[in-house]
Formats: sequence, structure tokens, C-alpha cells
Amino acid sequence: MVKVLALTLCTIGAAISAVSAQQGQFKRMSACPDLGCVFPPDRANFLAGAKFDVRVEVHAENGETPNADFSLTIEKLRGVDRDNKRRGSKAIDFSKYTKVKNTGPEGWNFTYYKDAAAYWKGQDGDEKASTPVNVAATAWRQVQLKEAGDYKVVLKYNNGKKTEAIWHVNPVQKRKAKNVILFIGDGMTTAMITAGRLISQRRVHGLYQTHLHMDQFKNMGHIMTHSLDSLITDSANSASAYNTGHKSSSGALGVYPDSSKTPFDDPKVELIAQLLRRRSKKQGGRGGVGIVTTAEVQDATPAAVYAHTRSRDEKATIVNQMIRGKDAVVADVILGGGGKYFHSKSGGKSLNGTDYYDVYQKEHGYKVVFDRDGLKNYKGSDKLLGIFHSGNMDVWLDRHVYKQNLAKSNTHPYGEKQSALNQPDLNEMVIKGLEVLDKRYRKEGWFMMAEAASIDKMMHPLDYDRGLADLLELDSTIGKTKAWLKRMKLDKDTLIVVTADHGHSFDVYGSVDTQFFNSAGDDSDAADLEKRNSIGTYENSGWPSYEDKDGDGFPDKWDVRFTLAAGTAGAPTHHESFQVHVNGTRVPAVIKSNSHHHYPVYVANPNEDKNGMAKSGTLGVTEPVGVHSLQDVPVFASGPGSELFRGVHDNTAVFHNIAAALGLGEEN
Amino acid sequence: MVKVLALTLCTIGAAISAVSAQQGQFKRMSACPDLGCVFPPDRANFLAGAKFDVRVEVHAENGETPNADFSLTIEKLRGVDRDNKRRGSKAIDFSKYTKVKNTGPEGWNFTYYKDAAAYWKGQDGDEKASTPVNVAATAWRQVQLKEAGDYKVVLKYNNGKKTEAIWHVNPVQKRKAKNVILFIGDGMTTAMITAGRLISQRRVHGLYQTHLHMDQFKNMGHIMTHSLDSLITDSANSASAYNTGHKSSSGALGVYPDSSKTPFDDPKVELIAQLLRRRSKKQGGRGGVGIVTTAEVQDATPAAVYAHTRSRDEKATIVNQMIRGKDAVVADVILGGGGKYFHSKSGGKSLNGTDYYDVYQKEHGYKVVFDRDGLKNYKGSDKLLGIFHSGNMDVWLDRHVYKQNLAKSNTHPYGEKQSALNQPDLNEMVIKGLEVLDKRYRKEGWFMMAEAASIDKMMHPLDYDRGLADLLELDSTIGKTKAWLKRMKLDKDTLIVVTADHGHSFDVYGSVDTQFFNSAGDDSDAADLEKRNSIGTYENSGWPSYEDKDGDGFPDKWDVRFTLAAGTAGAPTHHESFQVHVNGTRVPAVIKSNSHHHYPVYVANPNEDKNGMAKSGTLGVTEPVGVHSLQDVPVFASGPGSELFRGVHDNTAVFHNIAAALGLGEEN
Repeated sequence: MVKVLALTLCTIGAAISAVSAQQGQFKRMSACPDLGCVFPPDRANFLAGAKFDVRVEVHAENGETPNADFSLTIEKLRGVDRDNKRRGSKAIDFSKYTKVKNTGPEGWNFTYYKDAAAYWKGQDGDEKASTPVNVAATAWRQVQLKEAGDYKVVLKYNNGKKTEAIWHVNPVQKRKAKNVILFIGDGMTTAMITAGRLISQRRVHGLYQTHLHMDQFKNMGHIMTHSLDSLITDSANSASAYNTGHKSSSGALGVYPDSSKTPFDDPKVELIAQLLRRRSKKQGGRGGVGIVTTAEVQDATPAAVYAHTRSRDEKATIVNQMIRGKDAVVADVILGGGGKYFHSKSGGKSLNGTDYYDVYQKEHGYKVVFDRDGLKNYKGSDKLLGIFHSGNMDVWLDRHVYKQNLAKSNTHPYGEKQSALNQPDLNEMVIKGLEVLDKRYRKEGWFMMAEAASIDKMMHPLDYDRGLADLLELDSTIGKTKAWLKRMKLDKDTLIVVTADHGHSFDVYGSVDTQFFNSAGDDSDAADLEKRNSIGTYENSGWPSYEDKDGDGFPDKWDVRFTLAAGTAGAPTHHESFQVHVNGTRVPAVIKSNSHHHYPVYVANPNEDKNGMAKSGTLGVTEPVGVHSLQDVPVFASGPGSELFRGVHDNTAVFHNIAAALGLGEEN
Repeated sequence: MVKVLALTLCTIGAAISAVSAQQGQFKRMSACPDLGCVFPPDRANFLAGAKFDVRVEVHAENGETPNADFSLTIEKLRGVDRDNKRRGSKAIDFSKYTKVKNTGPEGWNFTYYKDAAAYWKGQDGDEKASTPVNVAATAWRQVQLKEAGDYKVVLKYNNGKKTEAIWHVNPVQKRKAKNVILFIGDGMTTAMITAGRLISQRRVHGLYQTHLHMDQFKNMGHIMTHSLDSLITDSANSASAYNTGHKSSSGALGVYPDSSKTPFDDPKVELIAQLLRRRSKKQGGRGGVGIVTTAEVQDATPAAVYAHTRSRDEKATIVNQMIRGKDAVVADVILGGGGKYFHSKSGGKSLNGTDYYDVYQKEHGYKVVFDRDGLKNYKGSDKLLGIFHSGNMDVWLDRHVYKQNLAKSNTHPYGEKQSALNQPDLNEMVIKGLEVLDKRYRKEGWFMMAEAASIDKMMHPLDYDRGLADLLELDSTIGKTKAWLKRMKLDKDTLIVVTADHGHSFDVYGSVDTQFFNSAGDDSDAADLEKRNSIGTYENSGWPSYEDKDGDGFPDKWDVRFTLAAGTAGAPTHHESFQVHVNGTRVPAVIKSNSHHHYPVYVANPNEDKNGMAKSGTLGVTEPVGVHSLQDVPVFASGPGSELFRGVHDNTAVFHNIAAALGLGEEN
């Protein structure tokens, strides 16, 4: 496979329009418009010295055998601008240039659907609807490019076909910040922040007299959230972009997706946490790592800090990836839910039945705690694992207002037959985590990712009250974090970044007089009309009746008369009553019992919001809840390096900005 | 009415929570929770030296006579913080302090609805559903406060009742910018910008290789758009906030709304354009004013630059307000639609039948043009009035792609029996306007407001293609403006602000395979299922098929196979086909013919998107189109003073920032 290309003149501009023509819903493979695939793909951005794997695949459709005779070369481009004609240096065999041998020939097969018509036939049991593909492949592992600039990588395959990739390597920056906190409000949009402010802050004649903490950041921007291969992202691949600087596909963490079956051989890209663990002495040395979430600690956003897999669903293995293996992050602080993947007791699903609490505690010296008291009472400086729920932690509204909902199931983090009734708040986890990081890495500094996960998890089932309450919990946590940093005299050294990973199409378009709404009869056109007329718009939207008299940053009452007329553009068929769901998380749709399809068809939940207005579904019928949306998400930043976040950025820039702030990378 | 209050200790903090308790959809009057009303109300912000009127009303409900014995005092507050206890100076009779006499006693009556139940009874003909109010009132006109700081204004009425207002006066700033351009994308949200970028810019594997002009501003922020008295604003009162620094109510321009019937006696606040016309020599002297819009020049957003009225619907009078009267703005450049309010020929509706084209041309020396050629050929330096359509100008998609739609009606700006087939683009209007301003006020500088009005006007009827095309036209205009400023060496002297006045709950949640969608049958559950399944989400959203190969900033084709799955949370009952409306603006809903209600009931338009999915309405049944939404809108700024726009601001801050940039106001 060793071939050397002659000196070439390359027109990079021309390559763009060809590739940007990718369109349509289904594809054989992400980021590979032709039969020859290179990952990282064209236009990928790298940090100098960050490690990455390279995957090459050659495809043949419909039973044909792929040609295994292919070659990969790389050349450093010299010149002024990556998008203009430039003279390259010499194209060199990839192994020779990188001093990394490839893993030898590999092969496998897979199938895909060409479009929606084929896909839905397949979902209904038609095995011929999919298209088979045979693959010849190889990989290079743990490659590094330590010289900043542009590179051209060329795969030659099928006797003269070429797939070109232009890679850009960013230089290492002079370190700006000692510490970085990345707050992620999962699924949090500008509209949600506006609504959260409206129900919690004090206004006089339309002018706010108190403000959200987020509203007080001066450096702000917008983040574009597209995936590698789709306009809508999931939380895994967007969090992966924040942690690696590389876009990816739905479900992928720290890898580009290849087409092989195993979710663990996909080409990896290095993580902020890994780079920080091996940061050079000159740049400040090895730093501390903290991970805090209200979700399972194996969920997409926290796992993106430390895991590498094609599939975010491999949660048992993800628990293992955190502490085992050559470059495992072994975070100093891990706080959240997800207990069931740590043990094999009742309800446990740990990898090979291992007790990972034991592994963390005995093999790696972690202090392990299971409830709020355990967390509060810990004053040590050992690594800290706090797991407070078998699954995702309960949301603020159930933990603080509708507490009876907590006792409904066996949710103990260690498989006891009891419920997790004593869960900490997000701010308690964050502050305790910061204390541990400060004790362990005061000199070198640290990186913490803290996620308010259930903004997203509640927006999905259209449970706006629960979502907004968790947004307000995030905001309150930001305020308490700023106060802690100031008290510890760390505020001038710490970059705070607050952002989201994607949006939901939530917005508010008026208010609802629920007294009038509830006075309408049932099941008649007249009642539907009266319910709709309870919605006030423009001047008749007036003001909702939420108030925060005790000043804790949350409304004092949630079952008020005048609520928000809120909705979501992409949702299943459901009923809407515009009132808080007192008995637990909303379930808008359920599976239709008498469908003749092989796949589930969701219809409005007949037992939920019984007096609600009927709302037609606007999604494929297999979607039980609302989905992510397109809109750019806001980013707020303060502290050293925060000016980098001004303006509109791709989500991969979050990685590069944090890397710049922390002085990560290695350069020749 | 002259009374003097003794020295008092005031607890301003306590006043906030009382007033913030305002809630509910209907109210007797905006910004007046008690029976005694003061306008400008509590918490209003002023610019030092800006002129304003004061209105005081005392109300009595249900046939009672209001007590006309009331008094108004003012005292300057001294101390550190407007929200802490502070010692005031002496409370002084308002007339004595301001050296302005009040207009004498006035009285009138009006009615209002107490809540939605009463309102809808009233709409259905029940005359007893409303509550009558009698009013005693007076006013002070053309008041000025030239000392920065906080003031307490107290209305004493009904033998011991008090209404207090704290007013804050901002100091005059040292001028930062020579010129200011305020671009308003009416109704433009972050989600629309994201969607506009997606269909027009070049991507490679999810990474943009070209960028919107808006995406290239580094200083950005968010604007909170609430009205004085409702969570959702209309375009009049939000544009009024931008031009005056004062919030107001739906439909109001440059005034606080009083409760009297006439729309012309409401208390006025001074406009940017008026302040600029009377700017002191020391601050740079009288500056130029330009107004450009794709709507009628009397529409809310452009009228807010120069008009004062409670009712944006008074369009004939608004044409007159521009040039007649003591402080008329007499803008140097007025370009847009709205011809029918200038003349009384066929279709004309001008004030008193006057030919205002004559008035502008002969009495005030304007050059008047009616089409694109007239605009292009004008090279003079006289004031310029260009009116290109009888009503709102046609949108980009009809002017450039579906041109056959232009010829459908008599839309000539001067009442000729022909259509306006030769309308200029937004960028042509803006650049010509800038040329005129530059010729007339090169030394003193100028202020231009340029509006892309039909983003909003197309989002209302859910015509997303037309709305996004007009957003892209705005973006292209921003690019051409920046190039012009650079060419003229004005870029370093000119503050550019790009923002919106409010949002719509538009977002994109996937893509649609319209080929699959259109292959579904009609009118059956199976067809509905297939249509819904043509919507791809997450990884199956893939990429839409819009492409801009010619690089003009717009998609080359609009009737493509893979379109955006877009929707709006607040919309009437309608059908959705996710495909461009070739034959003109979408009409989603029509009046139900057999309703027994006194008010119109809107149902899905049976002749539109016939093959579309049924979507249930989520608004009061009298709403024929989608409505404005809550979300903060983005603001992008560049040039001198642009740093003021970083972070989250109330909409009134746009005025104060522009005033600061231009050095407006008068201070002792």
C-alpha cells in the first residue's frame, strides 16, 4: 500500500462544492460521499499534538468485492490560505510520515437504506429493502501532527479513484486560564432562558429588576450544533465535539464512526481530559478533572468527557473505560446518577457482573458516596465517586416540590430495595467537586464539566415546567459557583463557559387562563374553541402568575392560574393542558395497540392531560416524544479566555477555545 | 393640585415586589396596578435632556366619579443605589420643579374586560361583560430632566392614596460614533438565522466553509422584548423602545398609552431622530436621518423612527407626522412601500385627500421616485422619498423567483392601474440612502434605520421559504453595506447594529423527503402515517438539497426534494406540506362560514397545501396566522460603541446604547 504521490498543484476551493452537494436523509456512510472513505474526513480541525486514529475504508455495493489495493499519502501544504490554490510539499506515504504502522487489512460488511421509502419498508419487515456493502479497511492508531498548518491527505483506491481530505492543525496557545468550568444545559435554548427568567425574576412594567446569573455574562456567542452528517445532532456527538474538536455522528463519543459492527474499534480522537492529564510541565503539568451531571454518569454528555465508543448505549463498558486502559481519564470527581451500571445486585447491569464501586474504591482509591449526606460530609482530598440514583437523578421539581414522586420506584444507586430519597442538588455536587479539585490540583489547575441534563430530558416529553425548573437550578448553580470562586480567590484564574449542546423547538407564544381553560366542557367542538380562547396573545398575553417572593430563584408556586402558552414544533400526537404535571414526568404519547405495522406507532396518551386540547403529531409515528431542533444555542463566558467565545462558532470551536485557554497540545 | 411632600425616607426595594405582582391577561390599564396612574411609570429610564410628556390619570370604576383632587410631586434622590433605602431631597410640586404647567383638568371614560371569560362574552355581543371606568386626568408636555440620577415621582389621590414612580435618568455620553445604522430583521430569531445559513452557505461534513455576514460580527448579545404590559410584544411597541428608550403597549409608537379615545394625545417620549436633529453643536450638531423598509413606510417599525401615536393603524396621519408639526423629523431619506397613504387617486387613502407626494416634493424639496430605475438614476443630494408599492413591497422570492406573482394586482405606488413590477432590492435602497445621507451630512454624521420587514410578514402565515429568503436578503444587504462603508472609508466611524424586534416560535426539527411525502395517498390514516414518516430526525435528518452554486447568498432552487421540517408552536389550524408555495404567499387559515359566533372563527384553508398533514390550531380561534413569541432576539454589532451590545439587554437599552454612541441628550 506504500505509494508516493508526485508534487501537485491542488485547488482546494473546487473540492468544497463537490462535497457540499451531500444531501438527503439516508446515506451509505457519514462523511463519505464516494466509495473511498478517510476519517478524520475533509475539513477536520486538529489541535497540534493531539492524538488521533485514522480509518480508511473502501466500499463495494451489492455483493461486489472491494478492491483492497489502496494507499494513503499526506503532504503539508505551504501558502497563505487553505481555500486558495497552493503548492504542496511532497506527498508522503502516511505510515512513513507519521511513523505509525497501519493495523493491517480488515474487512466486514454492513447494510444501509437508500432513502425513507426503503427505510420504512425495512422497518416493516422487508429484508430486501436495504443495500448490502462489502468493506476493505485499515487503520492507523495514535497518530500525532505536531506542526500547525494545513495538510492534504489522499486515499487512492479502485485504480485511480481519489478521496482527498484537507486537515487543519491549530497551533498550541499560551495558557490563559488556570481552571475551566464548562456548564452544559443539555438542550437549553435562548427561548428556555427567556421563559425561565420570566417565571423567576422580578419585573416592574416589563423591566427586570433582578437577573439570571446567565444574563450577567458579557461575553457571549452562538454555537452551531450540526452533526458530521446531519442537520440535527444528538447529545453524544455534540458533547463529543466539545471534548475533542471533531464533529461526529449520532450516538458517537470521542470517535469518528466507521462502518464495522463493533462499537469499540472506531477511530478515536483525543479528549480535553486526556490532553490535560498529559499536559507538559512547561504548560503547567497534569491537571485535575471533574465530571458532574444530573443524568447517569454514563450518559452522553458526561461520558463524552472520558469515553470512546461508537455507541453511547454501551453504558456498562463506559463505566470501565473511565478507569481502565492506557489513557483512561480516571477523573478526580465523578458525581451523578447511573448506579445500575456499577453493580450486579438487584437491577444491576455492570460489565461482566463486576462490582465497579469496589473497583473504584479499592483499586483506585476513590471515596464512594451514595447520598446527599455522604457528599456533604466528605471533607477529604481523595478522588470522589458519588452516585445518587440507579438511573438519571430526579429533577428539581420532584426533589423540591412534588417529593411524593421520588418514592415511586426502587432507585437506590447500589441495588437496595428502596428509593433514592436523599439526592443532592446540582450546586451541592458542583461545589463539593470544586473543593476536591482545588485540594488535589490547586497548583496545576483543573477542568470540570457540569451538566444540567434534565432540561433536555424533560423537554423531550414536553414537560416544560420540569425542564425550566432544571434550567433555573443550573442558573442558581452558576451563581453559587461564581461566589465560591470569588471566595477562594480563583475567579480571576477560572474560565467559565455556559452553553448547551443542541436545542428543542420550545417557545412561548402567550399566556393561558387555566381557570377559563378548565371551565370548558369535554369532547366537543365548543369546548375546544373555549380552550383555545383561553390563550392570550400580544397585549392579552399579560403576565403569568409565577412569583419568587422568597428569592430562591424558583417560582414559589407552580400550579398557578395564568401559565405559559408554550409549545414545540416537532412533537408526537398529544394533549395539551398548559398545567404542571403534579404526579410525575409527563408521558405525551403511548404505543397504539392495534397497529398492523412491525414498528411501534405512537398516539396521544389517553390518560394524560385528559382535559387538554388535541394536538396533531408532526413527527414520524415511531417518535414517542419531542425531538432536538436546529437552532444555534447560546454560549456565555467569563474569565480568562472568555473573549474567544464572542460571536458565532461551530461546536468544535468550544474544544479549541478551551484547549487554548488551558494551553493544551504539543507543538514541534 | 399644588402640594409639597415633606422629606421622606423611601424604601424602593419594597415597592418592587408589590408592582411585580401584576399578573393575568387583562387589565384596566397598562402599567397602572392601582386607581392612580403616572406615565412614564415606575422604573422608566430616561436620557438626560430628552423631552417627554407626563400623563396622570385617576380612575373610578362602575359609574363612580373619579376624585379630581390629586397632586404630583418630584424629588431628586441622592445616594448610592436606586434599589436601597435612600434619603431624598425635598419633594417639589411637579410643575414648579419642571417649569412646565399642566394642561388643566381633563376627563373621559372607557371600558375594559376583567378576564378572558368576560372578554369572550363581550366578543359574542354581551354588552354587560365589560367594566366601565371614569377618568380624571391631566398632563405636562415637553418636560426635560437634565440632571442624571434617580427621581421619585408621587401622585397623591383619593385622599391619601399614593402611586410612586422611580425614574432613572442616564447621563449624556461622550460621542463614540459618527454614524449609526440600525438593521432590523423584523421577527428574526436565532433559529431563522440558523435555517437561513443552512440553506445558503457551503458546508463540508457539517463544517461551514462560507458564512453569513451576521455570523461575522464578534460583539453580540440578546435582547429581551417584553412590552410594558405583556410578555409578548408587537412590532410597534418594540420598535418604539428602540427609538425612545421607553417600553410601551401593543400598537403604540413614541408614546405611553393613556386611556383616552384619541390616539394622538398620549404622552410622548422623544425619538432618536428628534434628538439627533437637535443635537448640540458641541456634540456634533444636527445629523441626517434615513429610513428604509420593505414594508409600508408607515408600518410600525419605520413609523417608530418618526411618529407619535397610540395607534399604528393611523397610517394616513403618520404620513403627515413625518413632515408637519413642530418637531417633525423630516427624514432625509424615506424608502419603502405604502403609496396608498400618500394620494387619493385610485385606491388612495391619504389624509383629507391631500396629495402628499406633492407636499413632500413641492413644500419640502424632496426628490420623489416610484421605481427601481428612478432610484438608481438619482444622483442628487436633495432629500429622497422613494415609494415603490401601494402597500408592503413584494418579497424577495416573488421579486426574483416567482415573478408571475407580482403582476396579480394593482399595486402601483401612485394609484396607476398597473402593478409595481420594477421594485428595488433592499440593498439598492440602503446603499442609495447612504449615498444621500453621506452627501448631506458627511460632516455631522447620520442615523439610518433599515428594516427587512417581511421576515415577520411571511413568518406570520407560516410561509417559511419567503421569510428565510428575506432574511438572506437582509444578510446580503449587511454585506454590501459593510463593503460600501469600507469603500467610503466610513467603516471605522460607523456603528452597525443588527437585531430583531421580537421572535416567532419557528424552528426546524429535521428534514422532509418530499418525494416520499407526495407519494402518500389522500385523506386516510395510512397516508397521514406515510407523510409523517417522510420526516427525518437526528441522523436521518441528513442534509436538505438547497445549494447556492452561483454564490449570490440564496439557494439556486427552492422546489427541492429534501426540504426542512419546520414548524411553529403557536399557529392556527392548517395543513402542512413542507414545500415552497409557488403561487404566492401562503394563506394557512380561512374564516369558517357557518359559525354562530359574533367573531370570526378560523379553520384550515381547504385550498392550500391540499396534500398536507393536518395540524391542529394552538391559538385563540380568531387568530388567522401564527403569532409573535417570547424568546430573546439576537443583536450583532460592529464599529465604535459596538461593545455596549455584548450580553443580555432590555430592548430599551438599544436606544440608550445608540444615544451613547451618537452623544445625544442634554445635561446640566
